[in-house]
Amino acid sequence: MRVEVICTGDEVLTGKIVNSNFSLVSQRLEDVGLQVLWGTTVGDDREQLLDAFQRAGRRADAVIVNGGLGPTVDDLSQEIAAKAAGVDLVLDEGWLARMTEFFERRQRAMPPSNRKQAMLPRGSEVLDNPIGTACGFALDVGRSRFFFTPGVPRELRRMLEEQVIPRLLARAGSPGTIHLKRFHSYGIGEARADTLLAGVETIVGGGVKLGFRAHYPQLETKLVVRGRDREDVERKLAPVQAEVRRRLGNFVVAEDDQTLEGVVVDELVRAEASLAIVEGFTGGQMAGRIAHLPGAEKVFRRSVSGRTPEQLRSALGVTEPGAVTDLSLVSVAFLAEAARRRAGATHGLAMLVELDEGGDRIDLGGTVRIAVATGKGIATREARILGGRDWVRLGAIEMGLDSLRRVLQKLPVDEKTDFEKR
Amino acid sequence: MRVEVICTGDEVLTGKIVNSNFSLVSQRLEDVGLQVLWGTTVGDDREQLLDAFQRAGRRADAVIVNGGLGPTVDDLSQEIAAKAAGVDLVLDEGWLARMTEFFERRQRAMPPSNRKQAMLPRGSEVLDNPIGTACGFALDVGRSRFFFTPGVPRELRRMLEEQVIPRLLARAGSPGTIHLKRFHSYGIGEARADTLLAGVETIVGGGVKLGFRAHYPQLETKLVVRGRDREDVERKLAPVQAEVRRRLGNFVVAEDDQTLEGVVVDELVRAEASLAIVEGFTGGQMAGRIAHLPGAEKVFRRSVSGRTPEQLRSALGVTEPGAVTDLSLVSVAFLAEAARRRAGATHGLAMLVELDEGGDRIDLGGTVRIAVATGKGIATREARILGGRDWVRLGAIEMGLDSLRRVLQKLPVDEKTDFEKR
Repeated sequence: MRVEVICTGDEVLTGKIVNSNFSLVSQRLEDVGLQVLWGTTVGDDREQLLDAFQRAGRRADAVIVNGGLGPTVDDLSQEIAAKAAGVDLVLDEGWLARMTEFFERRQRAMPPSNRKQAMLPRGSEVLDNPIGTACGFALDVGRSRFFFTPGVPRELRRMLEEQVIPRLLARAGSPGTIHLKRFHSYGIGEARADTLLAGVETIVGGGVKLGFRAHYPQLETKLVVRGRDREDVERKLAPVQAEVRRRLGNFVVAEDDQTLEGVVVDELVRAEASLAIVEGFTGGQMAGRIAHLPGAEKVFRRSVSGRTPEQLRSALGVTEPGAVTDLSLVSVAFLAEAARRRAGATHGLAMLVELDEGGDRIDLGGTVRIAVATGKGIATREARILGGRDWVRLGAIEMGLDSLRRVLQKLPVDEKTDFEKR
Repeated sequence: MRVEVICTGDEVLTGKIVNSNFSLVSQRLEDVGLQVLWGTTVGDDREQLLDAFQRAGRRADAVIVNGGLGPTVDDLSQEIAAKAAGVDLVLDEGWLARMTEFFERRQRAMPPSNRKQAMLPRGSEVLDNPIGTACGFALDVGRSRFFFTPGVPRELRRMLEEQVIPRLLARAGSPGTIHLKRFHSYGIGEARADTLLAGVETIVGGGVKLGFRAHYPQLETKLVVRGRDREDVERKLAPVQAEVRRRLGNFVVAEDDQTLEGVVVDELVRAEASLAIVEGFTGGQMAGRIAHLPGAEKVFRRSVSGRTPEQLRSALGVTEPGAVTDLSLVSVAFLAEAARRRAGATHGLAMLVELDEGGDRIDLGGTVRIAVATGKGIATREARILGGRDWVRLGAIEMGLDSLRRVLQKLPVDEKTDFEKR
């Protein structure tokens, strides 16, 4: 099946907003095994929209149109869809009632301009939007089935999952169920993951597709599993996902919608533990990943950051003579334990970074030193990361949070990653 | 002039990477008064590329093609460009020499596969790429002038500014010079800015275009000025930019490439001042904006974050009975001064946020309380921000940094913004 995605709107066409809706749609279709062949962007312009719809109606089997379903005069999708299909616009009483109710629940009267959102091309199939007033719809134009979706990303995402993808898969004659399984790892590059996971798709004899998406410092490994039904998918997925977990090993930090920082908070909550953070070079960014998460109110005690060992020493009230005078492993261990004690926490996480002299150059880098204190001991980690300062900082934050995860999950903290030199 | 932008590459088409190059190109062209009418995305596929080039060659006056200039087999731009123009590929000796030298400077031998990057369609005009091996080029296809650009964003950006835009403007018959002036403000919504600045373009009698780009919590106000030459542009710009500064007033936090946090660090450096930060709800994210900036090593002393008043009190070593027991203005003032003193800093910035009870709902919000202590006094600020928790957090961080800027620039800290309820 040949799919085209048409993104509409002057804000997208003029670059006022980055078109992340296109990659959202394209990626999700790729995940379920459908291929987008063309991406087209046009503004809020009748002539250009009609031309784009008509051309797509000639060359594609299915078309997803995004945007232009709002209540204002520059929202033209229904009007031009009707024109391209050669039908007129009719009021959808069902959707009008839904909108009226939507506003009533918010104790507001529906503005008259919103009535426009219930005018659909005759013969359209409504695509439900349970979280907004823009009504999605499907319609034939030329030889192609068109799916019209809202521009608001969360409304688009939901309509795509619940309404569009099932219809596309049915049209493509694909097996009943498709499932996307994701693993988030830290410390393995895409090339090595590809080697490590060679052949993993074939251990159940087909129906599983492996893919990657790198976003430094993490790597996402994706398994797309097709099956007759939910049970068939689970039967195929079980051995493959077990094998992926085995091969990527301790580098898997989270799965599916989990995040590394979310896993850390969950582990702390589960252990009824609590956390204090001290950070040098990363100036609050490690704490900034943790402190606001749901559950953090139970476990996050406090964080301290400072540019120099003296400031960190003084901020933590370290009075021992000779302690924390440099960026050494001993200093970072001392800081982790001091932070833990002063905050009355079970865990202390400290990080110091010693930058190479010579400035911000990609062939230089820094030495990252991390300590996790638990009251029963202090685990330390030292690593060289090469790259510009922002790159080193990103890598250091990830390594710090991952070291804490490893301590909480009783895994070794010093497995070498692909991003460090030794 | 009707411009089309064609983005090529499987990684873009499948959504593996978000296509920010498109918005970069589109926005810069808009800035200089050129209009992009079509955006097209195609994969690394000979048939689709040829079709896209030919169609663009029929409908557009100028086409910018991005990507596909690399050394690997799936980089097809030169090959398909030659086919679309009906010419053959010839080796550009000049570019081959440039590439050889590029590798020599890095003490590496040029891989044979890179030779492909110097094969250009016969009759092409070379577009210089001083920072990479991908050679840009311009060529006529159909009725249109095509400009081929590299996919690496920084190479694209430079080639666009130095090579493509001047040629486009010359073709469009535009006056010699165009200048983009930008103002970054915090606290004014786009609708109000539009009203405040009504008529500002016309005070020099033409040649100036006003535009906005909102990215909460900041708003960017843009002036595009056209003139015969640099001098003419400056003559037109001077009164208009003075008027924009006057009308937006104290809400302008930075101009052009400056940032709010960069301005804060610059002001602190200029005043030979130093800074300590205490933050509640924002858990290190305010410090995270400041601590890593160039210059911060001179002025940033330390930061502390914590979830509760008790933790902040204890982290700062506050011993006064009754101090910092809640999220009140008195507590935040006390914290700012305590942080300042303990860090030996000239300035202390503190922020506490009291969230509405009832959970994370967009019709709820929080009360933000900010204090800036200077040793000579303590300025405080209280504001209600409505919205989900992430929205409140973003707004609070901006308001905290802006309050510090206002104190450093001797401006009132309590001017009401468009984002708060009172």
